[in-house]
Amino acid sequence: MLNPARTVAELKELRALTGDENGAQRAAFTDTWVTARNWFKEKLKQLPVETHQDAAGNLWSTLKGKSPKELLIGGHIDSVPNGGWLDGCLNIVAGLEVLRRIAAQGTPPVTIRLVDWCDEEGARFGRSLFGSSAASGALVPDEIRNLTDKQGMKLVDVVKPHGIDLDRALEAQNELKNAAAYLELHIEQGPVLETANLPMGVVLGTFGVERHTITFKGQAAHSGSTPMSHRRDALAGVSRLHLLIRQIAVEHGGVCTVGKVTTEPGIVTAVVGEATMSLDQRHLDAEALAKMYQAAREASERIAQEEKLEVVWKILWRIQPFPFHPHLIELCDEAIRETCGSVHRLPSGPLHDAAEVCRAGVPTIMLFVQSLRGISHNKIEDTREEHLELSVRALDRLATKTIAWLSP
Amino acid sequence: MLNPARTVAELKELRALTGDENGAQRAAFTDTWVTARNWFKEKLKQLPVETHQDAAGNLWSTLKGKSPKELLIGGHIDSVPNGGWLDGCLNIVAGLEVLRRIAAQGTPPVTIRLVDWCDEEGARFGRSLFGSSAASGALVPDEIRNLTDKQGMKLVDVVKPHGIDLDRALEAQNELKNAAAYLELHIEQGPVLETANLPMGVVLGTFGVERHTITFKGQAAHSGSTPMSHRRDALAGVSRLHLLIRQIAVEHGGVCTVGKVTTEPGIVTAVVGEATMSLDQRHLDAEALAKMYQAAREASERIAQEEKLEVVWKILWRIQPFPFHPHLIELCDEAIRETCGSVHRLPSGPLHDAAEVCRAGVPTIMLFVQSLRGISHNKIEDTREEHLELSVRALDRLATKTIAWLSP
Repeated sequence: MLNPARTVAELKELRALTGDENGAQRAAFTDTWVTARNWFKEKLKQLPVETHQDAAGNLWSTLKGKSPKELLIGGHIDSVPNGGWLDGCLNIVAGLEVLRRIAAQGTPPVTIRLVDWCDEEGARFGRSLFGSSAASGALVPDEIRNLTDKQGMKLVDVVKPHGIDLDRALEAQNELKNAAAYLELHIEQGPVLETANLPMGVVLGTFGVERHTITFKGQAAHSGSTPMSHRRDALAGVSRLHLLIRQIAVEHGGVCTVGKVTTEPGIVTAVVGEATMSLDQRHLDAEALAKMYQAAREASERIAQEEKLEVVWKILWRIQPFPFHPHLIELCDEAIRETCGSVHRLPSGPLHDAAEVCRAGVPTIMLFVQSLRGISHNKIEDTREEHLELSVRALDRLATKTIAWLSP
Repeated sequence: MLNPARTVAELKELRALTGDENGAQRAAFTDTWVTARNWFKEKLKQLPVETHQDAAGNLWSTLKGKSPKELLIGGHIDSVPNGGWLDGCLNIVAGLEVLRRIAAQGTPPVTIRLVDWCDEEGARFGRSLFGSSAASGALVPDEIRNLTDKQGMKLVDVVKPHGIDLDRALEAQNELKNAAAYLELHIEQGPVLETANLPMGVVLGTFGVERHTITFKGQAAHSGSTPMSHRRDALAGVSRLHLLIRQIAVEHGGVCTVGKVTTEPGIVTAVVGEATMSLDQRHLDAEALAKMYQAAREASERIAQEEKLEVVWKILWRIQPFPFHPHLIELCDEAIRETCGSVHRLPSGPLHDAAEVCRAGVPTIMLFVQSLRGISHNKIEDTREEHLELSVRALDRLATKTIAWLSP
């Protein structure tokens, strides 16, 4: 018998064990993270599953089925420092409950595996999706080997005591050989479901991202002695581009954010000589993302010309969109509708381990449960308990539907 | 015989004595400033003038005339640290040459006084126009007594070894009792004359200034999970207001500058929750300045409402415009036209000691000579030597015209 109330109780147990007055402290490669994983392993010992850690530190628990074909359920028990009680571990604990239900009914038609991905958050070294990108093969060990934390310690040395040899991390790819489907439940971390007053949504995929800094160069000048007609105000580039970028986002149905602006010399009595803005553009459709990027670049060049400025773009990061599996989207839609009465379809703005599994070619789907106030990565991150229970039921229902789909 | 070439030679002499590879180092109350003043006093000793320092540290040299009515010529020998070779001392050295010419012709019809104002720049304590504001009576000793420099030294203690008792500084007002006119020559510090290809201009007055910080408050939110329609982007307030403020400046014939923008949390992956901008508005006409300020305030409130933001204004500083004397403007126009062949009329964006003398009710005028590249407060500050010589001739011609105007 599925017991969703137990999931909520276990999430609270984990919070009491690994959180403090500032929130969750399960940052990867810390003692508290080890404590969390040990707590989780104790729970798994009560089930007929084999548990092992792969070469990239991912923790796999396998319930053998009649077929070697595998249904994967995944999440991450690590959190950011001072994080919330649900981000990442909800699916680990909900997945545990689903595994219990399936195991209690005897050998399933396909093999069921629960995976706790290693260092999803990347809080310590600024590189997220460590374990899942090793499993997908996207990880390049030499790119991250010498990343250092605030204390100056290198990633390669920090992961070693946790049984991870960076040079062997890509061996984690073997774990996905028989994977036939991947399910991940997560809190939304945004305001869409709460605004729509719906408990759950089907995730259509993870957004592709274009992330850049854009610098406009004009001429610093005295604010009193320089007539308006003589100015080359670098801030005008930023102000005009920011407003156009908002329009570009709306026109193409994506999201675009200017999160940071700096001004040089940055004093009240000088026209801005150099202004720099950040740009973050996201879309579920690769072509639309490329169009948004192109539109922003063209706008920046037109504005620079009109304002007599130079403009320089510098790329920070770029990733393609990962649209989820069409049939799993339909199954997930049914599972949520049957559990909650209604459903919403939405893209995921944040990245998740599901994106890496999708990249590896495994049919993938995610379920979102409503976040209160759209807040996460913070101790006030929260979701109503009745919604948490519904999410366990929906994940279980989706597992049943997916097993049926995968069964011969 | 007026010898403008001697003025250029003396300016170079002063530069060699008090500058280094980083520029002029005559910041007030430093040893180098004292050196500069001693150099200047040596020059004065060769003239039939009485020289003394007033209670606010201003240095007055008086050539007695037939009437006690006084024509004042003023400037400042102090510079900013790493400053230019002309800002402030041009008029001191040019005024010395004019004084020589007048003294050589015997007792003038009115008394002629040359004043070296104390600490015009305010570089050390952030309070400009120290000496001239004492003479105008605008200085409030208690407001500046405890200002500290970078080393933590207080203004009141720093000025004492230079013969200035802050509590008696306002006695400098006595120096203006018989003042009938005030002339000040200065480099433009802006691009207007160079662009117009003219050596000199008549200054119509000093701009009034409204200086504020404006903060828009919205809601920080995740750049990926927050749809455009759900955002309260504080940066939108800044971008929209900045662009409108440029229009407001042009519409009202003033100058408006947004010199600094800051964003919170200020990261690439978050919608801006709080954005702050500086605002500096200047106009020669008090009514137009008030209209520019009002227009900016109204625009900020309309934008805040449309963008669902809060807006908060905080005043930094405010000063009224000081329009110069109408008859002196005409005399100055004639003097420049006769010297240079043509003339331009322009306001002064930067403040000058002339503003304080004007505030005290003394008929006041300034002459600007062209700056190269509009740059000052920097070692590359420069003016063509032939323009410097023309400026000495124009000042001398204006002195003659003003003496005639003041004579019974």
